Amino acid sequence: MKIAVDAMGGDNAPKAIIEGVNLAKQDFPELEFLLYGKEEEIKKYLTDEKNVTIIHTDEKINSDDEPVKSIRKKKTASMVLAAHAVKNGEADAIFSAGNTGALLASGLFIVGRIKQIARPGLLSTLPVINNPEQNGFDMLDLGANAENDAEHLLQYAILGSFYAKNVRRIVEPRVALLNNGTEDSKGSLVTKKAFDLLSNEPSIHFIGNVEARDLLNGVADVVVTDGFTGNAVLKSIEGTALNLMSLMKNTLSNASLKGKIGALLVKDDLKEMTKVLDYSNAGGAVLFGLKAPVVKTHGATEAQAVRYTIRQIHKMLESDVVGKLVAHFDEER
Amino acid sequence: MKIAVDAMGGDNAPKAIIEGVNLAKQDFPELEFLLYGKEEEIKKYLTDEKNVTIIHTDEKINSDDEPVKSIRKKKTASMVLAAHAVKNGEADAIFSAGNTGALLASGLFIVGRIKQIARPGLLSTLPVINNPEQNGFDMLDLGANAENDAEHLLQYAILGSFYAKNVRRIVEPRVALLNNGTEDSKGSLVTKKAFDLLSNEPSIHFIGNVEARDLLNGVADVVVTDGFTGNAVLKSIEGTALNLMSLMKNTLSNASLKGKIGALLVKDDLKEMTKVLDYSNAGGAVLFGLKAPVVKTHGATEAQAVRYTIRQIHKMLESDVVGKLVAHFDEER
Repeated sequence: MKIAVDAMGGDNAPKAIIEGVNLAKQDFPELEFLLYGKEEEIKKYLTDEKNVTIIHTDEKINSDDEPVKSIRKKKTASMVLAAHAVKNGEADAIFSAGNTGALLASGLFIVGRIKQIARPGLLSTLPVINNPEQNGFDMLDLGANAENDAEHLLQYAILGSFYAKNVRRIVEPRVALLNNGTEDSKGSLVTKKAFDLLSNEPSIHFIGNVEARDLLNGVADVVVTDGFTGNAVLKSIEGTALNLMSLMKNTLSNASLKGKIGALLVKDDLKEMTKVLDYSNAGGAVLFGLKAPVVKTHGATEAQAVRYTIRQIHKMLESDVVGKLVAHFDEER
Repeated sequence: MKIAVDAMGGDNAPKAIIEGVNLAKQDFPELEFLLYGKEEEIKKYLTDEKNVTIIHTDEKINSDDEPVKSIRKKKTASMVLAAHAVKNGEADAIFSAGNTGALLASGLFIVGRIKQIARPGLLSTLPVINNPEQNGFDMLDLGANAENDAEHLLQYAILGSFYAKNVRRIVEPRVALLNNGTEDSKGSLVTKKAFDLLSNEPSIHFIGNVEARDLLNGVADVVVTDGFTGNAVLKSIEGTALNLMSLMKNTLSNASLKGKIGALLVKDDLKEMTKVLDYSNAGGAVLFGLKAPVVKTHGATEAQAVRYTIRQIHKMLESDVVGKLVAHFDEER
């Protein structure tokens, strides 16, 4: 298995990326890496060159570059070269912490989508809170598309179910449709039609509509939605969590003397709590429905998150989830 | 000013409703109330009958009744009678904590919409966190409609701006469009078209696209979105906040001995913090775009929230925000 790594993408690149690769090499000694970027800088952080090939390039895509234009113009950017390596069969998957839009464009236009999948979707594993029985849930589309029709949502249900089974090892993932109410009859024209399609799809275990209020309770293993709504929901969850954590921090640091002493005493427990909210250990966001895994972590990523994302890519390759998807859709025709 | 009150709607009715009316009567001694429901029960809680008329009825709409069907069949339900009182000019506004769908239907089919407004929207004032300069922001549509087109979003922008000016006394409210990115070119077909319409509307101060991540930071005074997305965003914010607060509670009650002592000491400060999140003091959700204020609080509402919602209705009537809206749309034609 060979992973093409965009060593130059992200705010802490190449340091955090290469340090993450170092850790992943310990986890999976057999994994091979193609590292795209400035050779000299990469070598500064790389602890061991076994199973590693560095492909030097000076060019990279910046976080504020216009996605489609930049992958066309910057033909030797680290991300673009990594995508071409997958296209040409030199690597099996891409990892990047760079410009999300450019990575989506590289995935769609260079790696290419599975023939029968109309609109690949962005999938992440999000945290479940207050329910130790469940590790997280998979949601898509988180924003690869600005709008989707009901047929796309059906494909997301199948994609998400394959991911949960193969990568997260859930035997019979509960697939739900995000809607504006839990009753079967609820929804927009698109979600009503999608409800019918999902109800009649034999390859998934569809449990009906769910509301955004219940997502973090673990109401489903796979949650399907259009890219516009998914993007808004993900950002609402992130924004609320960040704001509340900082409100808590501000409250405790501006507390009464009594409160300040208390804050010191609860500090370790509250730190433990923030771990529940950190879902980087499930890996990054997958642009799912392409011919190979194309996976993205946050731009501000640290070495540990890079390591977890490489573990996730390893699971995707080991389980051959993409090959199984292709076989499923070929059979259906 | 006369408010028609559905005394039987909500989990704690009529107790919480009537106790809230008692408080509101102290705030606004000149306000008149028409209370619809079981006379005997209402009288049990009512402290003073001045400016109050009780209209007895045994029928009420339950929280699980099918909205449109129930308002047609239960012709003497407390909510339906209250809506007819507004329609017939006997009252100026309705208050209810009952079945949301039934109240929306009563608003649309009995009170009726302002002629030029195609799709009244559900508006609430939501909290701004970590920014003492700003009290909250108004958002609509929070789910009165399952889908909206760009023209509806333009009307929401105008409606929201009128509300912020007249009820919340913001001189020049910053109106923003919720979108999947902040760049002008971002969005679905609907939001792209809405962006153009909002940019060219002289009666509002449009500041462009905002993302859901920034809502609680107070990035705008009025946030416009379609009913499906608005519903998902509101429920995501509520679900995340509830889950985090209960995670914090669980963390502290399962803490180490050291942590438990700390938890006792920070308790008062953390309680203060939850007040920031409570937005019931801004009132309830308005179905805005109707011929009169139709306002809803949570089913689990307590007397204080009823009081705040009546204060909000008082502001709407005092400022004649509905009359001003009608004049604005009449002028435009």
